[in-house]
Amino acid sequence: MKDPVGRKRWAIAEGYIPGWSNGPEPQMTSHETACVLNTSEEDAHVQITIFFTDREPAGPYSVTVPARRTTHVRFNDLQDPEPIPHDTEYASLIESDVPIVVQHTRLDSRQEANALLSTIAYASIE
Amino acid sequence: MKDPVGRKRWAIAEGYIPGWSNGPEPQMTSHETACVLNTSEEDAHVQITIFFTDREPAGPYSVTVPARRTTHVRFNDLQDPEPIPHDTEYASLIESDVPIVVQHTRLDSRQEANALLSTIAYASIE
Amino acid sequence: MKDPVGRKRWAIAEGYIPGWSNGPEPQMTSHETACVLNTSEEDAHVQITIFFTDREPAGPYSVTVPARRTTHVRFNDLQDPEPIPHDTEYASLIESDVPIVVQHTRLDSRQEANALLSTIAYASIE
Amino acid sequence: MKDPVGRKRWAIAEGYIPGWSNGPEPQMTSHETACVLNTSEEDAHVQITIFFTDREPAGPYSVTVPARRTTHVRFNDLQDPEPIPHDTEYASLIESDVPIVVQHTRLDSRQEANALLSTIAYASIE
Repeated sequence: MKDPVGRKRWAIAEGYIPGWSNGPEPQMTSHETACVLNTSEEDAHVQITIFFTDREPAGPYSVTVPARRTTHVRFNDLQDPEPIPHDTEYASLIESDVPIVVQHTRLDSRQEANALLSTIAYASIE
Repeated sequence: MKDPVGRKRWAIAEGYIPGWSNGPEPQMTSHETACVLNTSEEDAHVQITIFFTDREPAGPYSVTVPARRTTHVRFNDLQDPEPIPHDTEYASLIESDVPIVVQHTRLDSRQEANALLSTIAYASIE
Repeated sequence: MKDPVGRKRWAIAEGYIPGWSNGPEPQMTSHETACVLNTSEEDAHVQITIFFTDREPAGPYSVTVPARRTTHVRFNDLQDPEPIPHDTEYASLIESDVPIVVQHTRLDSRQEANALLSTIAYASIE
Repeated sequence: MKDPVGRKRWAIAEGYIPGWSNGPEPQMTSHETACVLNTSEEDAHVQITIFFTDREPAGPYSVTVPARRTTHVRFNDLQDPEPIPHDTEYASLIESDVPIVVQHTRLDSRQEANALLSTIAYASIE
C-alpha cells in the first residue's frame, strides 16, 4: 500500500448556503458541500470550524470519514454545536488526524435552472 | 524537449454522475469527466480507483493516455471491472507511471439549462 | 493555537463584472467576489491591486479582515481610489501582512438562470 | 517592487469550445479563455501548445502579455498556425519567459441560460 494522498489542514474561503430552492428534493435542494476523501488505512477524525463576517467562529463540528471511504459533508446538515445560518457568508477550516483531500461544491437552485461551482480546497503546507 | 509537466498521483474528492439529462445527445448528456493531459514522450498507463461512502473501493480501472495526447475520461463510460452507479456519491484516485495533469469537469443537464463545474484536481506532492 | 493557514500573496487572473443582472437584489445581482479567510489571531491588512488589458494598474484598494473572521470582498463595491468598470476584463493581486486564504467567485445573472464559478486563487510560494 | 507572482509553465487539461451559442454577441458567445496575469516589469512572451486526443499537438501559438497587464486569451481567436476546431476535446500547455498566473474559464451558452466554469490552471513546480 502506498502512502495516503492529501494533507491534514484545508481551508475553504467561500461559504454560502442559498436561501431557497427549485426542483425535486433532495437532489435539487440548494446545498453546499465539503467532499472529503480518505485513501488511508485509518479512519479520519475531521474537525470543521466555521468563520463568519461579524462574530466568533462556530464549532468545531466533528465528522468521521472511515478508512478508504469518501464522505460528502453537507454544511446544511451540520447541527452540533449549532446549525449554520442560510443566506449568510461564511468560510471553513477543515482539520484531520490523517491525510485527506477536500473539495468544495455548491448546487444553487434558486432560479429555474441550477448552477454549480466546485474547487479543490486550499491545502495547507505550513 | 523540456521535462513533462505534472505529477503521478492525483485525487478528486467530489464525484457524482447526475441521474438524468435534458437536451441533444451526446453533448448535453449529464456526465462527469477526468481530463488527463500527457505532455511526455511516453505513453501514460493510468489507474483509477473509485471510493464510495459505504463500501470498499472499486477498480482499478485502466486507461492509457498516449504520448503527447489528452484523454477526457468520462466516468460514465468506465465499465471494467464494474460500471459506476449514477446518482451516487464517489471520489477518485488517479495514478500514472509518467507525469500527467488532471482536471475534473461535470456537465449537469438535469434542469432546462446545463450547469458546469471544473477544477484542477489535487496533485499529490507526498 | 496552531499556525494560521494560508499565504500572504495571492493572484486571480480572471476578472469580469457582468454588465447586467436578472432576479431579486441583492442576492441575484451579478457580482464578482474575492472571499478572504483570516484564521490568525491578528487583523489582516489586505491590499488589492487591479490589472487591466490596456492601462496601468489601479489601486491599491485597502481592506481589513479582522482576526478569526472572513470577508467576502465584492469587486463591485470597491470605490477607493476608483470604481472598477463593468463589462471589462481585469485581474487582481491580493497581498496581506498575515497569512490568509483567498477564493474567487462570480455570480452571473445576465440570463434567466444564474451561473456560478469559483476557484481557490493562486497562492504565491515565491 | 516585489518579485513578480506566478510560475513559467502552466497546464489546462480540460479544453472544449462549445459548438453553438445563445444570446447577444460578443458577451454571450460560447467561448473558452486562458486568462494570463503578468505582474512583472517585463513583457511576457507566452507560447501555447494545444494537445488533442488523436493527432499531434498544434502550435506553438505566440501571445505577448505586456508588463503589468492581463490578457484574456480566447482560444476561439487563435488562428496562427491554425484555428482550434470547435466541439473537439483538447488540452493546453502554456509557457512564458517571465512568471505569470493562468486561470481557465469557459462560458457555455448552448442552452437558454449560460453556464460558467473556472479554475486556476496547474502551475508546474518541476
